Amino acid sequence: MQKIPVGVLGATGMVGQQYLALLAQHPWFEVRYVAASPRNAGKLYRDAMTGRWQLATACGPEVGELRLEDANQVDAALRASKEGRLGFVFSALEMEKEAVLQLEEAYAAAGIPVISNASAHRWTPDVPMLIAEVNPGHTAIIPIQQKARGWKRGFIAVKPNCSIQSYMTPLYALLKAGYEVKRLIITTLQAVSGAGYPGVPSLDSIDNVVPYIGGEEEKSELEPLKILGQVHNGRIEPAGEPKISAHCNRVPVVNGHTACVSLEFGVKKPSIEEVKALFSSFSGVPQELGLPMAPERPIIIREEANRPQPRKDRDMDKAMAVTLGRIRPCPVFDLRFVGLSHNTIRGAAGGGVLNAELLKVQGYLG
Amino acid sequence: MQKIPVGVLGATGMVGQQYLALLAQHPWFEVRYVAASPRNAGKLYRDAMTGRWQLATACGPEVGELRLEDANQVDAALRASKEGRLGFVFSALEMEKEAVLQLEEAYAAAGIPVISNASAHRWTPDVPMLIAEVNPGHTAIIPIQQKARGWKRGFIAVKPNCSIQSYMTPLYALLKAGYEVKRLIITTLQAVSGAGYPGVPSLDSIDNVVPYIGGEEEKSELEPLKILGQVHNGRIEPAGEPKISAHCNRVPVVNGHTACVSLEFGVKKPSIEEVKALFSSFSGVPQELGLPMAPERPIIIREEANRPQPRKDRDMDKAMAVTLGRIRPCPVFDLRFVGLSHNTIRGAAGGGVLNAELLKVQGYLG
Amino acid sequence: MQKIPVGVLGATGMVGQQYLALLAQHPWFEVRYVAASPRNAGKLYRDAMTGRWQLATACGPEVGELRLEDANQVDAALRASKEGRLGFVFSALEMEKEAVLQLEEAYAAAGIPVISNASAHRWTPDVPMLIAEVNPGHTAIIPIQQKARGWKRGFIAVKPNCSIQSYMTPLYALLKAGYEVKRLIITTLQAVSGAGYPGVPSLDSIDNVVPYIGGEEEKSELEPLKILGQVHNGRIEPAGEPKISAHCNRVPVVNGHTACVSLEFGVKKPSIEEVKALFSSFSGVPQELGLPMAPERPIIIREEANRPQPRKDRDMDKAMAVTLGRIRPCPVFDLRFVGLSHNTIRGAAGGGVLNAELLKVQGYLG
Amino acid sequence: MQKIPVGVLGATGMVGQQYLALLAQHPWFEVRYVAASPRNAGKLYRDAMTGRWQLATACGPEVGELRLEDANQVDAALRASKEGRLGFVFSALEMEKEAVLQLEEAYAAAGIPVISNASAHRWTPDVPMLIAEVNPGHTAIIPIQQKARGWKRGFIAVKPNCSIQSYMTPLYALLKAGYEVKRLIITTLQAVSGAGYPGVPSLDSIDNVVPYIGGEEEKSELEPLKILGQVHNGRIEPAGEPKISAHCNRVPVVNGHTACVSLEFGVKKPSIEEVKALFSSFSGVPQELGLPMAPERPIIIREEANRPQPRKDRDMDKAMAVTLGRIRPCPVFDLRFVGLSHNTIRGAAGGGVLNAELLKVQGYLG
Repeated sequence: MQKIPVGVLGATGMVGQQYLALLAQHPWFEVRYVAASPRNAGKLYRDAMTGRWQLATACGPEVGELRLEDANQVDAALRASKEGRLGFVFSALEMEKEAVLQLEEAYAAAGIPVISNASAHRWTPDVPMLIAEVNPGHTAIIPIQQKARGWKRGFIAVKPNCSIQSYMTPLYALLKAGYEVKRLIITTLQAVSGAGYPGVPSLDSIDNVVPYIGGEEEKSELEPLKILGQVHNGRIEPAGEPKISAHCNRVPVVNGHTACVSLEFGVKKPSIEEVKALFSSFSGVPQELGLPMAPERPIIIREEANRPQPRKDRDMDKAMAVTLGRIRPCPVFDLRFVGLSHNTIRGAAGGGVLNAELLKVQGYLG
Repeated sequence: MQKIPVGVLGATGMVGQQYLALLAQHPWFEVRYVAASPRNAGKLYRDAMTGRWQLATACGPEVGELRLEDANQVDAALRASKEGRLGFVFSALEMEKEAVLQLEEAYAAAGIPVISNASAHRWTPDVPMLIAEVNPGHTAIIPIQQKARGWKRGFIAVKPNCSIQSYMTPLYALLKAGYEVKRLIITTLQAVSGAGYPGVPSLDSIDNVVPYIGGEEEKSELEPLKILGQVHNGRIEPAGEPKISAHCNRVPVVNGHTACVSLEFGVKKPSIEEVKALFSSFSGVPQELGLPMAPERPIIIREEANRPQPRKDRDMDKAMAVTLGRIRPCPVFDLRFVGLSHNTIRGAAGGGVLNAELLKVQGYLG
Repeated sequence: MQKIPVGVLGATGMVGQQYLALLAQHPWFEVRYVAASPRNAGKLYRDAMTGRWQLATACGPEVGELRLEDANQVDAALRASKEGRLGFVFSALEMEKEAVLQLEEAYAAAGIPVISNASAHRWTPDVPMLIAEVNPGHTAIIPIQQKARGWKRGFIAVKPNCSIQSYMTPLYALLKAGYEVKRLIITTLQAVSGAGYPGVPSLDSIDNVVPYIGGEEEKSELEPLKILGQVHNGRIEPAGEPKISAHCNRVPVVNGHTACVSLEFGVKKPSIEEVKALFSSFSGVPQELGLPMAPERPIIIREEANRPQPRKDRDMDKAMAVTLGRIRPCPVFDLRFVGLSHNTIRGAAGGGVLNAELLKVQGYLG
Repeated sequence: MQKIPVGVLGATGMVGQQYLALLAQHPWFEVRYVAASPRNAGKLYRDAMTGRWQLATACGPEVGELRLEDANQVDAALRASKEGRLGFVFSALEMEKEAVLQLEEAYAAAGIPVISNASAHRWTPDVPMLIAEVNPGHTAIIPIQQKARGWKRGFIAVKPNCSIQSYMTPLYALLKAGYEVKRLIITTLQAVSGAGYPGVPSLDSIDNVVPYIGGEEEKSELEPLKILGQVHNGRIEPAGEPKISAHCNRVPVVNGHTACVSLEFGVKKPSIEEVKALFSSFSGVPQELGLPMAPERPIIIREEANRPQPRKDRDMDKAMAVTLGRIRPCPVFDLRFVGLSHNTIRGAAGGGVLNAELLKVQGYLG
């Protein structure tokens, strides 16, 4: 099988780097196009990244030889597309919201599908916000999106914020098993890599916690509702529940977001053993399809009292599994647990690659 | 005024050291007696501590010249008491619960009041568990305790766990202002000093969070109820509410416990502005009495979006104030805030000293 | 005695903040003037600093009410000087070297003495680079500087880089005792606060060391030679030795630079005991004069095998002492030791205040 | 090819765990025997390790099902050997030196080769201390060792301390190229994993550096001399130079020891470019033999000013390469550089596995 040539927009940033590292040996996709801000345009990728590469794993050597394009120049991408060097793009753009909105639409209008990590289009009603195990059916909005906008081959699909990964899949597993969930109160302990580079100053992270991340609590409370919503009348109608309260904190951890969750069921309340069983056995479309980036089990349960821990558990199953521990009753609500997921892999680039794999199998990437 | 000679049991441990540092220049008390485990007995304190002192501040030079006693030998304390070298003891014993129970009772039986940081006697029904701003009246149980046990001058008073300080005073301020509080869901981010020395291994704290501290959640959920209880029929009857759910985490912070709190009121619900006003104006008996260790204001409010932070706020007002920030509505309950207090000062030795000051003024250390 | 009104240029930066904290209760100086970049000019200091104050200690409340001036507007300073609100300035300017060179000269030309932390004028031949215990006599260049430049009351005096404090005073103590020092090989482990705020990204400091700090090794190797130099022919002639090799590293420490030093004597070699004795008894002009900011003992020796440590020793004696430990023979050179000093106090603002105190007593601020 | 069954002594400790993780998919060896302290004997390995496994990578699932033996019972190992379940052992024993000396000899006497990480036998004159790229020929002492002690198949081979890996291979590369090296002054910044678990307390590693590691400086200064020595008269005669001075520090890093090195050549001094060329092209017996654990290039050079960094470079080439950076002249000696190696892989278990591979190819495990 011939690999699909892909591009990464925002290739010099943290998430962009993570995309390149993950795609270095991907069986279906190969990076042939990298774009970033105008000031890096024209440089070889390896030259632009001297002293700036942040990861312990490398991108493919051939990526280092690619010449960076200006991400604002859709023409360059269009040319690459016509020359067979670009099938679709991963967007890891770090710009003002308005600029991202327009730029991603311009790529889509040019016939280039955009699989995005940016938050700009998350609340665009005809753009699906995908977690491949949770709402793979939301891709049904894509033809509607294309038709409404007069796009042929291009479209936009996004993924949600990294902070929700640690509780979104478990929440969905409970709903799928038939248990109504009314309310959640969540406190996150989030890794510094979520803020990119340079990101969080050391003076805020050594011997310290910052109990605030701009915009993060709103995203953590609202994005799950769209993901749990229904495609209806040409738009995705958000679900009405559960109600979520999120306290988001930055802690001195490199990678891996932890979430402490208290959860209230509706009338029907599973036992702790039932909860464990349904988490352990949970499986989704990516697992059924055997997608390359899919974890074998989306949810891994640790029975030790003191797990999950970010440094020790974040890399489980290609860093794509959500690790849960401390599943126990809540004296105020019904259920408590601690969730952990790798924020720049499961919560960002890895989740984006998995979405692309899903879209490929569903036929949207041609 | 002549200073009261005091002793510190467990003087070589972390909390013991903190007591010695805080008492180095105390206007009412002076350390004349130090005791620890048998293996250190007989050594000069400064010799025993070579290479083991953990604090940036020092104990008084004369304490270094004291000879360590065996804390198990109540006789030695009795002798010191008779010689006028020991008016009461601070207990920072780190032993099995049963051993602490008996040993603290033995000191009290010998006529030596025990003001304790240990958890052993927290649930003894006739032992007051004091936060000087919250339940100073619980000391009324002391004469009952003495009578029931046939003790003359000795008694036991304890302080609660360090993890509850960041929300207990705010909770009480709300109750005192007439607002019923039904339920709280709390997540703590606790400093490593809470586990003593050597305590938490570096391999658990660098680039990591441990979402579990043995016994801490139970203490965090239940101790507030005794503190909010009533002296009745010769015992302290715990309050029936609020219900509390606590998630306790260890984070890479040296000192300062942070708590993220969601709180549900009863029928009567104050506005955010009313909450801020009553927190800011809250004052207790220690403030009215002008106790030396009392913070000027028990609760300090920060209006910046990203505060309180442990490294920057823990030392406010002799490290005895609770700093609150992010006071805002909760989409699930009614109120959210972030609380911070210094765990080895406000939450341990400083709280103990403040309790001793209260007991002194109330005439119990006579 | 009436306090001298002083100004702080660069008052919003890390070192500027540290100046304001240290001067909050200074017996001789009071801050009446604060200046920073144009974008903050006109704001009340407390408004400009909301969310930006980095220290656990506060500036004086009256400083919060000062209105920030534009540091580029020497006129404003001149006006303040004429109105008796400004006797001299501490410069903590963070600008391009050329801009600092000119601006500091402009203040001096306007009759306002400049006591600077900036590196711009360190190698200006007629500007003294002062460590008050080491080369207090270099202030003799000031009248020469004033005459050559046609300045009346104004002048410029600077302090050296923070990285050299941990070995410069010990080195001088050896020289003063008559022991020639030929060569030093030094490795520093430097705190992140040395890079200011935001400074070092967390992704470079969590679970990491950065073995490079731009320009730091050259400063660490060369500045000692000027400090050990002689005033001669209207300029300070740098000394010819010792030769120094410095390896400078950034480590995950908030405050406190550590230096591991191997040192080669000339023909005359003291014993380890002699070295300890001369370090312990070392005293300088600031100690003789009893300057307020002077540490009681410039060098403190720790005998424990594992000290000094930044978190535990950096605050010794107002954070102005240099703490030494592990004084022992070197199998390659003659002597080894570990030195520690607080980089933003002894190595920056505290050193600047001490220099100002020296200059005041010497009559230069009269 | 049938795999050789191997055992790990001290299988529950940090280095033991690392052995099991590295051997999980080894092409030549498979773990069939695990032994630890008597209190764990009889337990399934996975049961004994619940809550104690420290690594992000796992051991093979079949290892979890092995039953732990008491490492003091050589009989059990002898039985396993006779049953074909044990060809040789890796020793990661954490005991008193005397106990390790005797126990390793008892295994060897029982016919079981011992490839050891322990320091006990490092200075036994007929025991080779191996870095496979540096002194593979020292294995020639093994027949002499066996004959002198009357051992048939058993023998002891050890590896040096983890702290020397970052400069030992570069040092040897210089010597091999014909450049005499007279003296080195080295400062190490060592990771906490080197102290095992629980190891370094968090209160010593958060916002701190400890400038001392017991016994480490002596090892760092002396072990290179034995490694550079000659087999002569039935013993390994240590080399007479270079003279080494080592300052060893513990820093808040999980894995990866950094060394800042200043080095003096003899009369013949290579240029910086020559040094870089000979480091880059350096290759040893493991590379020539293509041993599975051998890094492709023993020394990797980074040209960026701020590398190597532990978190970003320690895992290069299976964490078996030494990464060098900042190769530059020394103003006091001749050459300076920064070296980095992974202390629990290259410096411990990985180095041990590589030694075993070498010994296998040389026929000693036959």
